[in-house]
Amino acid sequence: MNHIVFTRQAEVVLQEKLTGTPPESIFILADENTTAHCRQLFGNGLAREEHLIVIEAGEAHKSLESVARIWSVLTAKGAKRNSVLVNVGGGLVTDIGGFAASCFKRGIRCMNVPTTLLSQVDASVGGKTGINFGGFKNEIGTFSIPEWVIIDNRFLATLPERQLLSGFAEMLKHGLLAGEEHLTEILVADPAKAAETAFLPLIQKSVAVKEQVVEADPTERGVRKALNLGHTAGHAIESVAIARNAELYHGDAVAYGLIAELYLSVKKTGFDAQWYEQIRHFIRRAYPAYHPLATPDELYELMLHDKKNDRAGVNFTLLEKPGTFIIDNYCEKNEIIEALEQL
Amino acid sequence: MNHIVFTRQAEVVLQEKLTGTPPESIFILADENTTAHCRQLFGNGLAREEHLIVIEAGEAHKSLESVARIWSVLTAKGAKRNSVLVNVGGGLVTDIGGFAASCFKRGIRCMNVPTTLLSQVDASVGGKTGINFGGFKNEIGTFSIPEWVIIDNRFLATLPERQLLSGFAEMLKHGLLAGEEHLTEILVADPAKAAETAFLPLIQKSVAVKEQVVEADPTERGVRKALNLGHTAGHAIESVAIARNAELYHGDAVAYGLIAELYLSVKKTGFDAQWYEQIRHFIRRAYPAYHPLATPDELYELMLHDKKNDRAGVNFTLLEKPGTFIIDNYCEKNEIIEALEQL
Repeated sequence: MNHIVFTRQAEVVLQEKLTGTPPESIFILADENTTAHCRQLFGNGLAREEHLIVIEAGEAHKSLESVARIWSVLTAKGAKRNSVLVNVGGGLVTDIGGFAASCFKRGIRCMNVPTTLLSQVDASVGGKTGINFGGFKNEIGTFSIPEWVIIDNRFLATLPERQLLSGFAEMLKHGLLAGEEHLTEILVADPAKAAETAFLPLIQKSVAVKEQVVEADPTERGVRKALNLGHTAGHAIESVAIARNAELYHGDAVAYGLIAELYLSVKKTGFDAQWYEQIRHFIRRAYPAYHPLATPDELYELMLHDKKNDRAGVNFTLLEKPGTFIIDNYCEKNEIIEALEQL
Repeated sequence: MNHIVFTRQAEVVLQEKLTGTPPESIFILADENTTAHCRQLFGNGLAREEHLIVIEAGEAHKSLESVARIWSVLTAKGAKRNSVLVNVGGGLVTDIGGFAASCFKRGIRCMNVPTTLLSQVDASVGGKTGINFGGFKNEIGTFSIPEWVIIDNRFLATLPERQLLSGFAEMLKHGLLAGEEHLTEILVADPAKAAETAFLPLIQKSVAVKEQVVEADPTERGVRKALNLGHTAGHAIESVAIARNAELYHGDAVAYGLIAELYLSVKKTGFDAQWYEQIRHFIRRAYPAYHPLATPDELYELMLHDKKNDRAGVNFTLLEKPGTFIIDNYCEKNEIIEALEQL
């Protein structure tokens, strides 16, 4: 965690971290929604206006083309190995920017200033970078820990509640992985207040859950798979939504995925049925109703292709109880279909 | 060095290293020139015919488009995280394949079977991967050490002497970095005999020079810059040749670069003038005459853009004597121009 700063003064922290780096070596990546934040962060002359690279928002732009555009600008403006790319935005920006930085001249410096709840508690920390390719999410990417992640929840003030809810699904997942105490804190928290000072310690706690797992296994050979809870089913649901151009937030998909995978946990690893019902009820109350865009059979086929699965079948992280997870649970097709029918 | 095997039976070693990996998880990358070697290596049913990916030969194809094609095939054929990409070919194939493997699903297994002298003593070892971008060599890439490198100099039997000479320039560089004893061995060796059994120990010694440096500094923050000897000027010369579509081997450019940089070593770091004359004479006798495709001024501008240079100017690795190098020598423009006039 010592490369992650939790603050209500991102511009001050950023200035401190960039002390000694000349303006010609600083590049900023943002999307259409976060350029305003960049003015706040860099308006003091810290960086040059023409070093701001703006990519289009939206999952469809998490593409090799966007990365190539970033590389073209870096090349054209003479970025060097000791240049730094500061990614200001949601998970799309930090994922693409992190990937671009990790491959440009075989790796330049990289800092993240996440501006959505989802990127603050998940995407911007842990070192996973990536883009979509061939219709699959994050098919291409690297593991590359940013030099600094600066988390300031004032940025969340302008976000619609739907987007805060999306990030909150990852906090719920972290609560499930952490144990009853943190889980209970999450279940009574109000994501609508995520931008308030009092919410920052909850974000910090949530990030700490992720960091503990990542530090034990940065390249996901073992325990890091814990973080896949809710994501095996969730990614399949999200892939379909992307393919059909349907409005669905990542956190919605994860929330639905959590229902399916906690159901599997009840069936396979002895997770308490009452906890399952309580979480399911919480998700159904907080998140939009699930509209199936694909049959359970189609979702199963997509899961088979997930990069976390190998030839032995579809691989789930399941819970024994809050705080106790078991990785590498291979489930049969009929079990998975039944779980998906609970959504 | 314990992930590098020197052998005269690559097919046997490869079979051993792939024991336990099912055919559906094995992918092979080759170029038009090396598909024949693949039949020899995999003809025993080790891998599936349709898992052979063939890219076009030539520096112009060391591109993002080639990498995207590899990723498309891996996606289409259902490659997983535990799949392995075996790169069979010269530096172009191992550089592109290494990069493709290091980013596909954030990193799959990778093995190199280098088939040129240049890739055996340099490109296939040390973990640098990359593609050209925006007109610059290896502008995009990663540091990623392959699981195994299998070096079999029987593959060199079919190579034209011009190509063997190209790899030999890197052996000369390693000799200069190693010291008088190994340098003298190199100066009396005959690259035309590189495919013979007696030459394999010389390749092994040359690779050991590189590996010793790489192990001390895998991501080129310090001493690895030693390996840039001859390459600061060499890369600029090669960039021009690529841009003008001129026939020039990498090793030719390095050989010319060595002349310029040993001249700078005489002027700046006390390298013995007689050694300089001897190496210059050796290069002029062995390599084609230098045909300037750009003025020294134009080459200087290109060096300023080299990824190994920062804002302080053009950065050279120079020699005090054979075996003793000094990294981070910043030279003035007039010194560099004078050195380039010696070619």
